[in-house]
Amino acid sequence: MSSTLGTIFKVTTFGESHCKGVGAVVDGCPSRIALCEADIQTQLDRRRPGQSRVTTARAEADQVTILSGVENGLTLGTPIGLLVGNKDQRPGDYAELQAIPRPSHADFTYQSKYGIRASSGGGRSSARETIGRVAAGAIAEKYLRETFGTDIVAWVSSVGTVDMTEAVETALTRKQIDASEVRCPDLDAGKKMLEAILAAREENDSLGGIVTCVCCGIPAGWGEPVFDKLEAALAQAMLSIPATKGFEIGSGFAGTRLRGSAHNDRFVLKDGRLGTTTNNSGGVQGGISNGEPIFFRVAFKPPATIGQPQPTVDFDGNEVILEAKGRHDPCVVSRAVPIVEAMAALVLADAALRQKTRL
Amino acid sequence: MSSTLGTIFKVTTFGESHCKGVGAVVDGCPSRIALCEADIQTQLDRRRPGQSRVTTARAEADQVTILSGVENGLTLGTPIGLLVGNKDQRPGDYAELQAIPRPSHADFTYQSKYGIRASSGGGRSSARETIGRVAAGAIAEKYLRETFGTDIVAWVSSVGTVDMTEAVETALTRKQIDASEVRCPDLDAGKKMLEAILAAREENDSLGGIVTCVCCGIPAGWGEPVFDKLEAALAQAMLSIPATKGFEIGSGFAGTRLRGSAHNDRFVLKDGRLGTTTNNSGGVQGGISNGEPIFFRVAFKPPATIGQPQPTVDFDGNEVILEAKGRHDPCVVSRAVPIVEAMAALVLADAALRQKTRL
Amino acid sequence: MSSTLGTIFKVTTFGESHCKGVGAVVDGCPSRIALCEADIQTQLDRRRPGQSRVTTARAEADQVTILSGVENGLTLGTPIGLLVGNKDQRPGDYAELQAIPRPSHADFTYQSKYGIRASSGGGRSSARETIGRVAAGAIAEKYLRETFGTDIVAWVSSVGTVDMTEAVETALTRKQIDASEVRCPDLDAGKKMLEAILAAREENDSLGGIVTCVCCGIPAGWGEPVFDKLEAALAQAMLSIPATKGFEIGSGFAGTRLRGSAHNDRFVLKDGRLGTTTNNSGGVQGGISNGEPIFFRVAFKPPATIGQPQPTVDFDGNEVILEAKGRHDPCVVSRAVPIVEAMAALVLADAALRQKTRL
Amino acid sequence: MSSTLGTIFKVTTFGESHCKGVGAVVDGCPSRIALCEADIQTQLDRRRPGQSRVTTARAEADQVTILSGVENGLTLGTPIGLLVGNKDQRPGDYAELQAIPRPSHADFTYQSKYGIRASSGGGRSSARETIGRVAAGAIAEKYLRETFGTDIVAWVSSVGTVDMTEAVETALTRKQIDASEVRCPDLDAGKKMLEAILAAREENDSLGGIVTCVCCGIPAGWGEPVFDKLEAALAQAMLSIPATKGFEIGSGFAGTRLRGSAHNDRFVLKDGRLGTTTNNSGGVQGGISNGEPIFFRVAFKPPATIGQPQPTVDFDGNEVILEAKGRHDPCVVSRAVPIVEAMAALVLADAALRQKTRL
Repeated sequence: MSSTLGTIFKVTTFGESHCKGVGAVVDGCPSRIALCEADIQTQLDRRRPGQSRVTTARAEADQVTILSGVENGLTLGTPIGLLVGNKDQRPGDYAELQAIPRPSHADFTYQSKYGIRASSGGGRSSARETIGRVAAGAIAEKYLRETFGTDIVAWVSSVGTVDMTEAVETALTRKQIDASEVRCPDLDAGKKMLEAILAAREENDSLGGIVTCVCCGIPAGWGEPVFDKLEAALAQAMLSIPATKGFEIGSGFAGTRLRGSAHNDRFVLKDGRLGTTTNNSGGVQGGISNGEPIFFRVAFKPPATIGQPQPTVDFDGNEVILEAKGRHDPCVVSRAVPIVEAMAALVLADAALRQKTRL
Repeated sequence: MSSTLGTIFKVTTFGESHCKGVGAVVDGCPSRIALCEADIQTQLDRRRPGQSRVTTARAEADQVTILSGVENGLTLGTPIGLLVGNKDQRPGDYAELQAIPRPSHADFTYQSKYGIRASSGGGRSSARETIGRVAAGAIAEKYLRETFGTDIVAWVSSVGTVDMTEAVETALTRKQIDASEVRCPDLDAGKKMLEAILAAREENDSLGGIVTCVCCGIPAGWGEPVFDKLEAALAQAMLSIPATKGFEIGSGFAGTRLRGSAHNDRFVLKDGRLGTTTNNSGGVQGGISNGEPIFFRVAFKPPATIGQPQPTVDFDGNEVILEAKGRHDPCVVSRAVPIVEAMAALVLADAALRQKTRL
Repeated sequence: MSSTLGTIFKVTTFGESHCKGVGAVVDGCPSRIALCEADIQTQLDRRRPGQSRVTTARAEADQVTILSGVENGLTLGTPIGLLVGNKDQRPGDYAELQAIPRPSHADFTYQSKYGIRASSGGGRSSARETIGRVAAGAIAEKYLRETFGTDIVAWVSSVGTVDMTEAVETALTRKQIDASEVRCPDLDAGKKMLEAILAAREENDSLGGIVTCVCCGIPAGWGEPVFDKLEAALAQAMLSIPATKGFEIGSGFAGTRLRGSAHNDRFVLKDGRLGTTTNNSGGVQGGISNGEPIFFRVAFKPPATIGQPQPTVDFDGNEVILEAKGRHDPCVVSRAVPIVEAMAALVLADAALRQKTRL
Repeated sequence: MSSTLGTIFKVTTFGESHCKGVGAVVDGCPSRIALCEADIQTQLDRRRPGQSRVTTARAEADQVTILSGVENGLTLGTPIGLLVGNKDQRPGDYAELQAIPRPSHADFTYQSKYGIRASSGGGRSSARETIGRVAAGAIAEKYLRETFGTDIVAWVSSVGTVDMTEAVETALTRKQIDASEVRCPDLDAGKKMLEAILAAREENDSLGGIVTCVCCGIPAGWGEPVFDKLEAALAQAMLSIPATKGFEIGSGFAGTRLRGSAHNDRFVLKDGRLGTTTNNSGGVQGGISNGEPIFFRVAFKPPATIGQPQPTVDFDGNEVILEAKGRHDPCVVSRAVPIVEAMAALVLADAALRQKTRL
């Protein structure tokens, strides 16, 4: 499907970095959900660069327009068209790089795939593509929150070699997260992360990091057996975000080192329903939600665009030194937080609607 | 889609642990591929329990029958029906567990989802479901190998706390892998893994582990931008395998600790094509293969079925002590090796065919 | 998707005319539907040849086996595997025809598409492929009948130039239909149809005809706007049946000759709900069911296999005279009746489940 | 998929009659196809009302903007966003009809489906939804024409009771078609059709009709067996157009009255390839193109909006007399011509790309 995700709650995104606009079409959203542009703008603003010292200074207003599917503030059940104009439609900074595929960028692979590529920026692999996702995710999230009380919150849990003291996965609020410039709820760690980012920028270098996401208020029964297990759908969604290299749910890679007797989540009675004492499962068993919080972590590599000169070859194989211009984010994980939330919301909204066909 | 995976090369699996049979329908396989049951049986045999001291003693012959889609040893391009009979169609060992949802199993979540569940074994969440995948994957692999020279090899890189000395990701053979009883090509580590498994069995406990997979012979250009990025499709496929908790590609989670200047894979000329000096990308950039080997790691939790008594509650919330009977695998990663290979092959065959529509 | 139909209630069929078996996998069927093989066999028996003087004498027992997805007589919500063995796995009658593409058969087009084709019979274009559909349709129908009281009945409304006096589209029963050897509820017309068929057989020729289908007990609201309109889904399903050339719903082609003032279906109050006085719409408006009976007609061409010698060319372009051997149905519409019912049931079950995600 | 059509060449449409805009996202279009807005505008202009005496006077400029996916006049292989603004975003004429579901419109069924509906016009069932289809279809057509020499031409073959003398299905040009105000290439019949339309308008009534479409330059091998037969995909596409009630391909309903000996299309050698002497098959055999022209006919009912007072009931069941205001098309078949062409192009482009995965 490529640019389309979901079986019932479906989102199709479009747009490159320097075309007229980017956006999405959301099909399958339930009718009669209260929705206005402000509902969407909040998360777009969190995704936007230029919010803090750790992101680029480029001003991208990124105002969303709802083109269709909403009338008098209510969804009609029909496709919701979403559009955000591109300010910078005339390429500049990147133009001279055309002959040289940037290391660890998608220039070479897009050219290999299509025999052509956008003349500037990352084209479809640009971070601007995620605008459509964040806009669509805000709608998914609104549906989930109002219907099931679902709460999705992500934050930065590491930047480079600076880790936060991983807290128990409890309910944090976005306000708590945004109190930190890097979106790390451990404020001490957050300060160190900020320092690391500013140091990397100074050295024309970049840093990776990890985003943790917790989803509360998910009833038992969401997710489909076999190929569309809830964790499989989340893994696909997260690895579809640019610059991601890993996904783990619940105990994750560390859990492989535990024994079954320590890893098993025993059942207990919780408020009249079955719950578990521990949550190594991360809220899913056999691909289906069990009513406990779903939590997972996503690995982001350090951005490929760095200010340092890099020895590489051009498309013809000639050795060259590549020097990037313009200003670029030395670290993207803070801006990735609302993208991770959006992708989680899209997966969960689809799972919620699919479960309606099961019982 | 639930039990169906793929856009062009599509596999649909069916079957529970104790019904008449399990299998798959493969639709979209190219025509005129030489195929016989022995091509499929090899990988099914590698998946089968009872091959070594580290797996259960249950004898499952698991002979595959090709029901359709092949004539005179060649695929017709039409759906290939694959069937493996279940020997054990009358449940026994598990029957008494019906009233108690096993911790970290899918009993509770299936019951929540469907309001019913198979009266025995794991039903659709059983490991027997993977038979259809392995059979289908063997066909995908044959297509890839004969058409592109693709070579997919997976192995066990850790069991519990025993890690292999992670080698450079080069071309190993399945013969090398199978020389080790636990399928770890580092024979010293393999011995320690075996000891750990036998010790865990002795203590009625279980161990998790990690499977590493390397895919060589992938041309540049496979994988679709945005939601169907090659790494996203692989992540979905791997997290759809029972008992998996994590996926990482290339530098993965460890790569988040590197700086961009160290992480970027610089281009060089290799045999007349552009290649990279390092492969932190794991063979994909922007979701599309770049011609370098694709490698990734998959985390498997320790099996939930253990011989120890476990305090938990029944479906009504009454506290009970659950004691498992029968014999169970204390560690599944060795048997998971051909499953990981199969899922990789299914994803790559689909990507290969989709790329034919692009250029 | 090729061999898969449906978004939620999905059926995937497999099997050629002379392979080991034909069948289907039904995924997405709701759980806890009472189901046994006899529920399916009834419609398979109606589809089977050799039931009357108007069909071929080949004995095809066509006993269905439920491979998976049902336990203790109830569906589990998991994929239902269905298998019918092929008796005649060694081709005979057709073998010599290999070098000559039969006129108006699929030999030439399959060869063009795949570069290979089944060495005998119609391969995947054979009527035996419809066994999987009829089996799957019986399950869909059971779900619809028990959940919504839906009743689907089809019959033969013309054979060659013999038309039945088209009655008002009211509720007929299958028993009434099967009282006629050709499945025409107008018994006088039925006799003339039978005579026409026997005469055509005598002359080694074949006859086409029309099947009418009425579906009662469909609530308002099924069907999706735009590309998946209910009539569009029905049209696809019907034109996917071998030998079909046309589909019309409600007033159909004849309705194009009416004026809007005569064609519009005015609303009235019926038993407390809005209904219409006429039903030129055929039960759908804007692609969505309106609560009135859905009725449509499907055109079947005369079977391409005839006993007469036919001048044509072989694959190399050499002029030849083709003479068919074996016995073939001179008219397929009577046997097509349960196939049309099955396809209608599959479309409606999917629409019913999709509507659960809307309200 | 509802608002999405296609497996590889995929189109997703959005937009109601009175929202900000209507449009489409085309995903999967091959890269490096020359494309500009003028390529699309031509067919949009042919679809637009107000072109002749037989359509409404409403001025809808319907200028398309390409939002993404095209750079320097070439497609990038990425999603092509298409947008046409709505002039009339404030409902007027229709507002008072809110309480009364219009006979044979979608008001009642949308309300039943969604529990809400657009407050004016037809919402998503409006003819304006087809703008996205026509725009997308123009792209599909360009790809087909430049790659395969495919030529798709449709025309009006009947209006009410006025039939054209159906010519042999040969290659007509759009210029020839547009020479007639009603788009009927039989100019005498066209005049009578025009008179009939003007008479119906005078009487505040409406007329239906039939559109015939011929597609030349289709290689053998397109279309998929079983559910995605080429004729099945075309039938779905055509029945998804608003106001359609029937579809027939090749000999269609009339062909049911022929005997097999007369209906079979015998093979002959044509320019070195196998062709057929007759074309009752309409260019498809077993669901796959055979290299002959594909032709089919689509039935359009008389428009439901008429100027006459109509007795009906409101949503509460109270008897009322409905009087339509505004000016409406007494006959839509002339404007439907480019819509039929667009839908044919979308189906064929998808079939062409899918066939690339087969051989």
